[in-house]
Amino acid sequence: MKKVVIIGGGFAGINAARNLGNKEGFDVTLIDRRNHHLFQPLLYQVAMAGLSPADIAAPIRTILKKYKNIKVVMDYAKKIDPEDKKVICKAGEYDFDLLIMACGARHSYFGHNEWEKYAPGLKTINQATEIRRRVFMAFEKAEKTENDLEMSKHLTFVIVGAGPTGVELAGAIGEMNRYTLGDEFSQLDVSKTRVLLIEAGPRILAAFDEDQSQRAQSDLVKLGVDVRLGQAVTHIDDQCVKLGDETIQTSTVLWAAGVEASRLGKSLPVELDRAGRVPIEEDLSMKQFPYIFVAGDQANFTGKDGRPLPGMAPVAMQQGRYLAKLLVAREKGKDIGGFKYVDKGKMATIGRSSAIAQAGKIKLEGFIAWLAWLFIHILYLSGFKNRFFVFVQWTWSYLSFHRGARLIIGKKWRFYSDDD
Amino acid sequence: MKKVVIIGGGFAGINAARNLGNKEGFDVTLIDRRNHHLFQPLLYQVAMAGLSPADIAAPIRTILKKYKNIKVVMDYAKKIDPEDKKVICKAGEYDFDLLIMACGARHSYFGHNEWEKYAPGLKTINQATEIRRRVFMAFEKAEKTENDLEMSKHLTFVIVGAGPTGVELAGAIGEMNRYTLGDEFSQLDVSKTRVLLIEAGPRILAAFDEDQSQRAQSDLVKLGVDVRLGQAVTHIDDQCVKLGDETIQTSTVLWAAGVEASRLGKSLPVELDRAGRVPIEEDLSMKQFPYIFVAGDQANFTGKDGRPLPGMAPVAMQQGRYLAKLLVAREKGKDIGGFKYVDKGKMATIGRSSAIAQAGKIKLEGFIAWLAWLFIHILYLSGFKNRFFVFVQWTWSYLSFHRGARLIIGKKWRFYSDDD
Repeated sequence: MKKVVIIGGGFAGINAARNLGNKEGFDVTLIDRRNHHLFQPLLYQVAMAGLSPADIAAPIRTILKKYKNIKVVMDYAKKIDPEDKKVICKAGEYDFDLLIMACGARHSYFGHNEWEKYAPGLKTINQATEIRRRVFMAFEKAEKTENDLEMSKHLTFVIVGAGPTGVELAGAIGEMNRYTLGDEFSQLDVSKTRVLLIEAGPRILAAFDEDQSQRAQSDLVKLGVDVRLGQAVTHIDDQCVKLGDETIQTSTVLWAAGVEASRLGKSLPVELDRAGRVPIEEDLSMKQFPYIFVAGDQANFTGKDGRPLPGMAPVAMQQGRYLAKLLVAREKGKDIGGFKYVDKGKMATIGRSSAIAQAGKIKLEGFIAWLAWLFIHILYLSGFKNRFFVFVQWTWSYLSFHRGARLIIGKKWRFYSDDD
Repeated sequence: MKKVVIIGGGFAGINAARNLGNKEGFDVTLIDRRNHHLFQPLLYQVAMAGLSPADIAAPIRTILKKYKNIKVVMDYAKKIDPEDKKVICKAGEYDFDLLIMACGARHSYFGHNEWEKYAPGLKTINQATEIRRRVFMAFEKAEKTENDLEMSKHLTFVIVGAGPTGVELAGAIGEMNRYTLGDEFSQLDVSKTRVLLIEAGPRILAAFDEDQSQRAQSDLVKLGVDVRLGQAVTHIDDQCVKLGDETIQTSTVLWAAGVEASRLGKSLPVELDRAGRVPIEEDLSMKQFPYIFVAGDQANFTGKDGRPLPGMAPVAMQQGRYLAKLLVAREKGKDIGGFKYVDKGKMATIGRSSAIAQAGKIKLEGFIAWLAWLFIHILYLSGFKNRFFVFVQWTWSYLSFHRGARLIIGKKWRFYSDDD
């Protein structure tokens, strides 16, 4: 019986676990510090009040309950002891014969961690509901104030980083401002809202071809988004963002500019890459420790073009599935060769009826691309229930222009003394 | 043009506003410190992970957007100046000709406010998600510990107060333990779970007839709930609850024992009743200030039996509607007489397929009562969208035994330094 420990219930970890589920000869423990698997590609919908957290997340226990050889533990992995083959967690220690590390990534502020409290990133449900609270509170505050400068500060939204998440956030705020909020804030002139998307590189969505970037940018501009290219943020606080000499007064800054891999990698005696990822071999194992595998955003796997594969859900899912197959094959004395990423294409959405998609030589734009995006995201949502609800909810939102989950909920649970 | 200010977007406030909407001669401002109207009778479903917050709450602006004479303000009312006809809020002051106070109620710990942090009540979405977090974390902790005493503490749930909310919470935990969690916590013996429902009075659901209380109690016992009658809690901390000489070791205590009206009533120069409610006349106005009306849980209105009407949604809804009609009639020089409560009956639910209902001489129990309960609650949910979603969600939960919203989400938004 091989003891397999998987750290992380994201796309890589869940897919590895599922494919080891009920396989003879394996005793699997999945450790995550949260109780739920999160469908991260739709997290911006929670931040923008289109979906509720439970629509895109499911308890890991529920997902894996049919596999009798898998134990799910909610615990916080602090350290790995690769020699003694042990994972040291907050509540206990877990021995392994084989380890799969799939702890994902979090935001990186490029040495400016002090920016985080002014400019939250979007990786967890807590962050998504915090962003939701900030964005909708800004509109509430703008309506109440009689000071023009204050109002313009509350109505200025700055998004840093124009990858898929930044574009989605900017598009959603622009769209909401244009189509939903005007009717409801009777005292507010929503035409005064400014949405700025700041990108240090020469174009948005740099992973796509240039014509598709162009199209996405012009769709954003139609939604009223001010796209700033080739400009780097030099300062952020609770009043403003600075871009070189220019100061933008704002009360809402969102960060979508960079990620770094989970800290757990640092507990290994290897040199990590600049983004904190663990370098791995063709079979996703570590050179020094062939019984430790790394998958997903935490892994640095060199792709066909000589560059590391990007931190995307399809890579993580394929790596998770590959690892399970590899272990099962090896247990039978077989080999399945190294991991090969099958690029099925990529897509990004800008707003209602607007997206770009690219698969091999096929490129889609506009409504068709958006339909494809919708279809694929619903298809991949884990578990039928969520898939169905998200579908119904989106159909409804599309027809009605509503954002159903537009609740502003306090930062923390309030005690009697604060509350009334 | 009469300036009407409504404080509170609960059942009373929303119903008053809707019925004053687009009525000539009225300029209405609704003030609430939250941005959403909450369907409180289903809040326990959020706490027990059956529904998401957005399923039972909707932005007040959305509900009222079609009424051009209504302005919605998110602000915190601190004081009322009844002579100068002003509401003093955190962000601004609001003048009125007519004032409707409908600020609701919150939990009362009978002089033991220090119990609150160990035993949260269930009045707001934040409290519901905190209760959800505590209940599901208790199961997670129970599974991880190897100490039997610790485990039994984590698997003991104490609910104080056996009114409708207490019964709903106890029933839901009992049911979940029995039907949902057993499969998923492979290391846990869920038969060790204890759910205690503590009631100081002689029976549960005292507002119902005795035979119905009996039936509800026996349904609870079938779900494994230990019902303790005639026992008062004398101490609560993070380790235990004391009932006289008996000490119950527990890590989860929920409070459903008593309420008191909003503090805002204290800023008025009148004597409040013991529960902090404002005494009112037949037309819901205050004797000293006939232009100030009070409705819902904050009002002490004497019913036909000589006792104050209970703090229930139907009373608040009827009072809100009545006030709007009264003001419209008076504006036309007419009178519609005093408020009369139409008692359409009451109901309480214990769990899946189990409820009690009473309307005049008709009494229902079991599955039929539960269907009636489901039907009426869906019917009353504000706005078609929520109604429809809740219906779909419940049908699904009923068929699948799932609890879709079983996410454990941190107490607060975490900063970079705490996270990962």
